[in-house]
Amino acid sequence: MTNTATLNKLVIIGVGLIGGSFALALRKAGLVKHIVGVGRSKENMQRALAQGVINEIAENMASALQNADLVFLAMPVGQTTNIMAQIAPHLQTNTIITDAGSTKQDVIAAARSHLNPENLKNFVPGHPIAGAEQSGVLAAQVDLFRNKHLILTPVEETNTDSVQQVTHLWQACGAVVSTMDADEHDNVLAATSHLPHILAFALMNHLHTSTENNPENLLRFAGSGFRDFTRIASSSPEMWRDICMANHNALLSQMKAYQNELKVLRKILERGDGEALEKAFSQARGIREDWLRNRD
Amino acid sequence: MTNTATLNKLVIIGVGLIGGSFALALRKAGLVKHIVGVGRSKENMQRALAQGVINEIAENMASALQNADLVFLAMPVGQTTNIMAQIAPHLQTNTIITDAGSTKQDVIAAARSHLNPENLKNFVPGHPIAGAEQSGVLAAQVDLFRNKHLILTPVEETNTDSVQQVTHLWQACGAVVSTMDADEHDNVLAATSHLPHILAFALMNHLHTSTENNPENLLRFAGSGFRDFTRIASSSPEMWRDICMANHNALLSQMKAYQNELKVLRKILERGDGEALEKAFSQARGIREDWLRNRD
Repeated sequence: MTNTATLNKLVIIGVGLIGGSFALALRKAGLVKHIVGVGRSKENMQRALAQGVINEIAENMASALQNADLVFLAMPVGQTTNIMAQIAPHLQTNTIITDAGSTKQDVIAAARSHLNPENLKNFVPGHPIAGAEQSGVLAAQVDLFRNKHLILTPVEETNTDSVQQVTHLWQACGAVVSTMDADEHDNVLAATSHLPHILAFALMNHLHTSTENNPENLLRFAGSGFRDFTRIASSSPEMWRDICMANHNALLSQMKAYQNELKVLRKILERGDGEALEKAFSQARGIREDWLRNRD
Repeated sequence: MTNTATLNKLVIIGVGLIGGSFALALRKAGLVKHIVGVGRSKENMQRALAQGVINEIAENMASALQNADLVFLAMPVGQTTNIMAQIAPHLQTNTIITDAGSTKQDVIAAARSHLNPENLKNFVPGHPIAGAEQSGVLAAQVDLFRNKHLILTPVEETNTDSVQQVTHLWQACGAVVSTMDADEHDNVLAATSHLPHILAFALMNHLHTSTENNPENLLRFAGSGFRDFTRIASSSPEMWRDICMANHNALLSQMKAYQNELKVLRKILERGDGEALEKAFSQARGIREDWLRNRD
């Protein structure tokens, strides 16, 4: 394929919210002819076929990957190593491999363990920063990636053409594409996504284990601020287990630094320093207001 | 006044979001004849008068409180002691005193220091769990308290009639009225409101002080989960300084317990125990889903 050519054959492994939305967006853009879906849930795959999200359910990995222009890995991150091992023997030299994993260093490690050097040249790790609390192909939306960030973290072996082609496809889905190193990606996401999820999960459990108060009575009076703050605690436990396990080093260092920040506030409160407290809150609000103003 | 009588004269100290909304709701319910406003900002008071939220701007505290049926303290919590001292010399024996402070033990302490025993019988501490990020009389809404919780924390001196009359007025504003001890109130709010605010403020500052990453680059990729999680970090620094200072004991013990919860998660991550992590996340999600289902 060239930059402007359509994909004759696209293989999507994991036809859920992300995989399904990618299929819908590329179809709308007229950039794909035939889509083969691979997935564990027969029911979900039949739905994807019935709704025209995919053209074909793969019989096996070998036939799915034959003459594929691009393979998109969109299954849960915890299955990455397993899937890399499954696709490796059947990849053709010119097939581009890309993924949607929320962490990148672990996906790259899995690729290095299983893909041969020729295939590694066409491996373009990626992460669309888009999602929803729903999952499965029924949650797929043609506009899911519109105006959302998409981060690519090519490895040193990745050739420029492959990066450009994957960039082109995501841009056709409406995404804003950026490129950075995998370790920077994992640190950025640990700070702005993984840490907040941990904090929200921890708050719910803290309220539950608190023995001084009746948890029901506690929560009865929780308002809209609490509802928004804890929204991400309703996310998929399995998905977040995989993400946190995959990125545990970056996440642990974020957690440690955050706990130091809390300790600073505790000391301010302990010494009753209202001026320092107001200053800390003002700074926090200022950073957020700047962020809201500068958002793309 | 009796349970069904209208207030001939209502004095509102602090005619902002809360004080203004109380005025609008009671007027709509036909339960007030004349409203006198007391406030520091001349501009805000003129606006309140021009919009018909109040009937009169107080010339001084003595004339404002003369023949008042009820005084509603709705100024920032940090001014409570000062205002209690100002109103005390002018309160009549039958005037009911109530407030809207987010913390209750400190308001009660201020009342005990300044009000005489006769007035303390008509003192009904209260806290409407409603609010918005805006402030000032222009933010007032007639329906602000509709279906919102209102907690009363009467002291042992408070007589039953006064509690019933304040309950009646808040119910007429559409609020769901509960009664509890002040220390329970302060613990409940520390857990479900004050702690989340501290956590959100701390996250913004953590991202800022993090030197490993460029803060702008960090925040550039923050998504909608981050936006909702940090919404309360845009709250008023002055207001939250006052609340946290007033409730620092309960808040400090919540912070300590929360940090222990974070430590548990850190240890799970450090030993790479995916099963325990998923269990912790599942429990957190379950508690939140139960809460959403049972919400009034």
